[in-house]
Amino acid sequence: MSEESIIYIGNKPAMNYVLAVLTAYNTNGGEGVVLKARGQAISSAVDVAEICRNKFLSGVSKPIIEIGTEELPGDTGGTRNVSVISITLQPDKKTSKKKT
Amino acid sequence: MSEESIIYIGNKPAMNYVLAVLTAYNTNGGEGVVLKARGQAISSAVDVAEICRNKFLSGVSKPIIEIGTEELPGDTGGTRNVSVISITLQPDKKTSKKKT
Repeated sequence: MSEESIIYIGNKPAMNYVLAVLTAYNTNGGEGVVLKARGQAISSAVDVAEICRNKFLSGVSKPIIEIGTEELPGDTGGTRNVSVISITLQPDKKTSKKKT
Repeated sequence: MSEESIIYIGNKPAMNYVLAVLTAYNTNGGEGVVLKARGQAISSAVDVAEICRNKFLSGVSKPIIEIGTEELPGDTGGTRNVSVISITLQPDKKTSKKKT
């Protein structure tokens, strides 16, 4: 998966990211895109994935979702753990045409 | 999956839900538990799942995660869409002993 197929979701309005996802999805030759987010932005990432899937993209397979934990340096020294999510949106192999 | 194996995550502190998940997980005979959340609570649900998996439970398989959209009645009439997540934590078949 190339660098430009990863969309990092932050605190901007969801539609900004939807546009980024659609652009990446349609330009990378059927490779699919990965949405990544951590902390409070996890909810937004799920929103963005659902908006893309239900309103804009057709023939997307069931998203592959993984969760994990990252250690970040805390404000007062030490580390704190933050949850991360990655949501992979890929064309459904059965319905999409293979590009050559 | 029985009713008591579903934990709905809301706005309380994460540790409240961690306790509920651990209790359900250890009392339902290896059936596993499902964490459900919607909207902003999705981030908390991922936090709870990660805390349980990393700190309290051993021999848990990779969580099975599904996302979706629900229609709720809006404040000003009409409907609004809200994202939902369900995270399934189950004992790993390879490492856990079967209960009879």
